[in-house]
Amino acid sequence: MKVTVLGCGRWGSFLSWYADKIGHEVVLWGREGSKSYAGLEDRRANEYLTLSPNIHITNRLEEAIISAQVVLVAISAQELRGFAKQLNALEIEGKTFVLCMKGLEMESGKRLSQVMKEEIRSKVDVAIWVGPGHVQEFTKDIPNCMVIDSDHIDVTKRIVDSFGSETIRFYYGQDLIGNEMGAAAKNVIGIAAGMLDGLGYTSLKGALMARGTKEVSRLIKAMGGHEITAYGLGHLGDYEATVFSAHSNNRRFGEAFVRKESFGKLAEGVATAKALLRLSAEYRVELPICQAVDSVIDGGNDPKEQLLRLFMRPVKFESH
Amino acid sequence: MKVTVLGCGRWGSFLSWYADKIGHEVVLWGREGSKSYAGLEDRRANEYLTLSPNIHITNRLEEAIISAQVVLVAISAQELRGFAKQLNALEIEGKTFVLCMKGLEMESGKRLSQVMKEEIRSKVDVAIWVGPGHVQEFTKDIPNCMVIDSDHIDVTKRIVDSFGSETIRFYYGQDLIGNEMGAAAKNVIGIAAGMLDGLGYTSLKGALMARGTKEVSRLIKAMGGHEITAYGLGHLGDYEATVFSAHSNNRRFGEAFVRKESFGKLAEGVATAKALLRLSAEYRVELPICQAVDSVIDGGNDPKEQLLRLFMRPVKFESH
Repeated sequence: MKVTVLGCGRWGSFLSWYADKIGHEVVLWGREGSKSYAGLEDRRANEYLTLSPNIHITNRLEEAIISAQVVLVAISAQELRGFAKQLNALEIEGKTFVLCMKGLEMESGKRLSQVMKEEIRSKVDVAIWVGPGHVQEFTKDIPNCMVIDSDHIDVTKRIVDSFGSETIRFYYGQDLIGNEMGAAAKNVIGIAAGMLDGLGYTSLKGALMARGTKEVSRLIKAMGGHEITAYGLGHLGDYEATVFSAHSNNRRFGEAFVRKESFGKLAEGVATAKALLRLSAEYRVELPICQAVDSVIDGGNDPKEQLLRLFMRPVKFESH
Repeated sequence: MKVTVLGCGRWGSFLSWYADKIGHEVVLWGREGSKSYAGLEDRRANEYLTLSPNIHITNRLEEAIISAQVVLVAISAQELRGFAKQLNALEIEGKTFVLCMKGLEMESGKRLSQVMKEEIRSKVDVAIWVGPGHVQEFTKDIPNCMVIDSDHIDVTKRIVDSFGSETIRFYYGQDLIGNEMGAAAKNVIGIAAGMLDGLGYTSLKGALMARGTKEVSRLIKAMGGHEITAYGLGHLGDYEATVFSAHSNNRRFGEAFVRKESFGKLAEGVATAKALLRLSAEYRVELPICQAVDSVIDGGNDPKEQLLRLFMRPVKFESH
């Protein structure tokens, strides 16, 4: 199958590597002038992997898109709307777009599949690809389970059939809202986990997992999804990679932040927390972990005080 | 308050240390001839902590029990029934017994509070104390959240009021079946986690968390508890300490087992898996993770094959 990957950062370059490995005809697109793209064009390799000669690399969007049947999108979540507008200028009718990023539009709180559907004027299919998995492990053939979801089970099944392998075993998602929200919200839980690590409170990550899933579950339910989806692969199943792994950007960002060490960039969870607080107000669902993370990063509040208040507040019932 | 701790292993010795620290009058009982007891009698210290001079240590059960208002029980789960029979010879009417171990009776599949209630002939109150927390961290004043549960909310509240502090913040449990089952079942998930670590499949611990909670949740529901309790502090909240911590006995046992390294003893989860499989048959609930763990440890099956089969089986829906 003809597969195009848009975005050549860590995840995008991996997706092209993987799609080629399982037998697809792959084009990898990167933005002209981006550092990741320049590196791959020069060396056909980055710190994670080496691309096979069969993968065609380009920075011309039309060339990348024109013959693709399936387009895997792995650009920055906050750039999706602008990018989708550009896609409208191209022949994209009938193609399937699979959103492989985890995030929400900061300014609107919208899910990425909503952003796509709002902007794209042609008839296309849209799916998401979420769940756990480290590029660093997949490239060593260490397997994991992931999730494909969409509004149409036939689209979901088609993507699962085309991209499943011994390395990535896909489950059929049955709750697009829940899986998309859960995948995004784990960014924020990852930052909170990193803050706990940075403060020496690693053992509170157990309580963080119980409280984090519950908070996300309530929001998913209020938005019309299934509350139990928060406890599936898309959210809880991503906690090993997010809450415990040395590879997690969000966790590392949170840890560096409370240690006042430089991290060089904002983690995606900073924008996700803003988006979630918007949804918290809109759906009237309290999100105390998101609130605490945002109040530390954006509000300048003391992380130790905020996090201990979260977990050590007066005795209460665990709500059912 | 007069508090007696029965059992002077890692957790029992910690409970006496902690009860003394928060102002109770404490007696610590250990079995005559036990190595832990001999060490504490000699040095009033073990590898984890030093006991204050205010703690009275004894190996005479009657002396330990006689004036206690609350008895914290931290002996081996499999010895509880025999121990409870001994307690019947003493004056125990009106006392509150708090079971602080996590396990199930292997031969019967019974919960420890059931075993207590079956054996004790006097009128006593029975509660459980479960949830996350490492002795190694509590003794450094690193706080955590735990759960007290019982059949009577007034008993639960009384124990929470007597034992809560800045170091341990208790939540009121509202589902004795769920919290007791969840606390025990985490032993088995811990062994499975260790096996994944030992096989180099650490990144599958995300999927293990999603699948493990679901499996335990289904059993709790079938037994008459709340399915959501599996996602609270007593089970999921204990995963940091169990699935990820270097301190976890069950995790370390599973890791050593697949690496064919000596561990010196069986972890509690080995018995818990047997008990759970009994309940699996009784309540007709499939418990694939327990089955896999038991089939590796007791059945001699290949761990890699069993665990990969668990996670890498053909595509399916995530059930709601």
